[in-house]
Amino acid sequence: MTQRNTKKKDYNKMALVLHKKMHGKLAVVSKGKLKTKDDWSTMYSPGVGAVSMHLAQKPEDARTYTIKKNTIAVVSDGSAVLGLGNIGPLGALPVMEGKCAIFKTMADVDAFPIVLDTQDTEEIIQTVKAIAPGFGGINLEDIGAPKCFEIEERLKAELDIPVFHDDQHGTAIVVLAGLINAAKVTKKKIKDMRVVVVGAGAAGRAITLLLMQAGVGDVVMADSRGLICTERTDLSAYKKELAHETNQKNVCGSITDVICGSDAVIGVSGPNTLQPEWLTCMAKDPIVFALANPVPEIDPESAAQAGAYIIATGRSDYPNQINNSLVFPGIFRGALDKGVNAITDEMKIAAAKKLASMVKQPTPAKIIPNIMERGLVEKVASAIK
Amino acid sequence: MTQRNTKKKDYNKMALVLHKKMHGKLAVVSKGKLKTKDDWSTMYSPGVGAVSMHLAQKPEDARTYTIKKNTIAVVSDGSAVLGLGNIGPLGALPVMEGKCAIFKTMADVDAFPIVLDTQDTEEIIQTVKAIAPGFGGINLEDIGAPKCFEIEERLKAELDIPVFHDDQHGTAIVVLAGLINAAKVTKKKIKDMRVVVVGAGAAGRAITLLLMQAGVGDVVMADSRGLICTERTDLSAYKKELAHETNQKNVCGSITDVICGSDAVIGVSGPNTLQPEWLTCMAKDPIVFALANPVPEIDPESAAQAGAYIIATGRSDYPNQINNSLVFPGIFRGALDKGVNAITDEMKIAAAKKLASMVKQPTPAKIIPNIMERGLVEKVASAIK
Repeated sequence: MTQRNTKKKDYNKMALVLHKKMHGKLAVVSKGKLKTKDDWSTMYSPGVGAVSMHLAQKPEDARTYTIKKNTIAVVSDGSAVLGLGNIGPLGALPVMEGKCAIFKTMADVDAFPIVLDTQDTEEIIQTVKAIAPGFGGINLEDIGAPKCFEIEERLKAELDIPVFHDDQHGTAIVVLAGLINAAKVTKKKIKDMRVVVVGAGAAGRAITLLLMQAGVGDVVMADSRGLICTERTDLSAYKKELAHETNQKNVCGSITDVICGSDAVIGVSGPNTLQPEWLTCMAKDPIVFALANPVPEIDPESAAQAGAYIIATGRSDYPNQINNSLVFPGIFRGALDKGVNAITDEMKIAAAKKLASMVKQPTPAKIIPNIMERGLVEKVASAIK
Repeated sequence: MTQRNTKKKDYNKMALVLHKKMHGKLAVVSKGKLKTKDDWSTMYSPGVGAVSMHLAQKPEDARTYTIKKNTIAVVSDGSAVLGLGNIGPLGALPVMEGKCAIFKTMADVDAFPIVLDTQDTEEIIQTVKAIAPGFGGINLEDIGAPKCFEIEERLKAELDIPVFHDDQHGTAIVVLAGLINAAKVTKKKIKDMRVVVVGAGAAGRAITLLLMQAGVGDVVMADSRGLICTERTDLSAYKKELAHETNQKNVCGSITDVICGSDAVIGVSGPNTLQPEWLTCMAKDPIVFALANPVPEIDPESAAQAGAYIIATGRSDYPNQINNSLVFPGIFRGALDKGVNAITDEMKIAAAKKLASMVKQPTPAKIIPNIMERGLVEKVASAIK
């Protein structure tokens, strides 16, 4: 019995076996038959020529007559894959395939992975622009900071379809949803909260900006060298901007200089960057999101012992999993259905509220719905309009 | 009765209705389930990380673990779509989708359409190179001459996966197959033949080069201004090269200066460019391929009246349809199965011979197998090794 209970599943090995058996997780199938002569003559030549001529004259009808209606690209250069770092396009491909499988299974979105043989910002932008006509949206994925910011901004400005970097905004939306329900549980108002965000990469920046858009009173960020404040001279361009936009009182120093009295701390950094003793001086009912995966910033047991009242992680084996898959299928389902050309901050905040509202009676162990809950995709999608 | 007999199906209208109903002819589906926690943990995170790390270290295993094994891109810039001309990427999309549907239905190849928002040679090359890692092959489609030549040559040189411009080589392979059987029917040897190719675009050039590679004795080409010969001063760069490579006796002038005594004439130009009276002085048992679609270079009835013995067209409503779909599914099926990194001339000739061999007893009305014949894809695929 002991042996059976302690036997842990080796998902790595299981995944290697599964992938080797499948030779790729996606198939591209025809929605129409090609059996009779009429099939051939309407699916393809000569009849298809009439569709082509129609679209040559009215390209705005592409969503009516082509896959653009329901198809997105999941694009990565492999520069920041999961927590594995810069492992290139083929390293990224299994992850992108998995994401596309989730898109289809959860939201009936036809998603196709495009992994790039370049990590140059300008080349990535030009490539995505060049392949964009056939797609109804672009999901950027696992592209490292800071170049992911420019790539997304430029593509948003230069394309007329939604461009969404899931590592940034998917994460930010789920975090905001969790914080909304955590506020409910702790009977606090998010506008009165001080939140410390540990980690100032792509996710940390997006979380911070969305929390502020949603009205969180004070957000203070920390990177590996300390708090992001205007007096720092070692900040990159985007962190300099963040120094001006965040940290109301412009506190400099380390996390310990700001954690006391804070309502929530959100880790998007790496393993074990939060010390249990730091949590002991937080405001009443501390909220701790330790999202590094698989090893969180602080292990949930230690956090609880140190007084954390609500704890969320990125892991499926603890309560309150902050999981992007709760959001990205619904975001693109809604975007494709409504034909919007951008995912705005308003839509992201609305999506977070919809997601939060799925938990009817939030408790410390349940601030976020589970990925398997019915109606999840429809609920998130309804925020896009 | 008369009315019913003369009622012709309006494939244009039928195609528009079908496309509007389908909203795109392709779906991207997951080959694996995402139901249990184990599914999620092996199809996606955390297990997928082990597959990613494996591929980061051994990218050569991509065909074992990812869609690269069975997936190709069907790429077009929309500059020469069917006979419709330069109608752009969205005009091209329904045709590319149809092609992908044929790939899947006939040969179980996962083909995805990529239509480009650029018609610049260098940008097309850079874009295809950038998106290549996830694909096991590139099918170029409906890209105009002469830029299609440079694009294909460059991509063949710079990528390690097969690159195949179907409008050129697919057509050439079927034409060669037809000519092999036409030679059998007329008891001629192709090395003794003189063939006049009318039309010197992408298809005309590829047909000519492949026929010569296959040993056809003399091929003379004509464009709209006359025969391609070295004395012409109005020739583009690639036609200048062709003037040196073809036309054994370097005959200048018009088609009438070379058609008498020729064994075969192959039209890849446009409607009604062949006059019936020209055929009357051809060698015994004239072979006429009039491949312009939907209106051939000469209508089959007129050709027969003028003495043509074997007639092929691009149309499905006459005998001997020269149809690329006979070839491209098998070519890529074979290329993916064998993991070859190029489709060589030897493979193309072998494919033509395999295709020809499917017609056990060729007759004037049957020199080419039908698209519905069993074993077609496997036969063509067996030429690739």
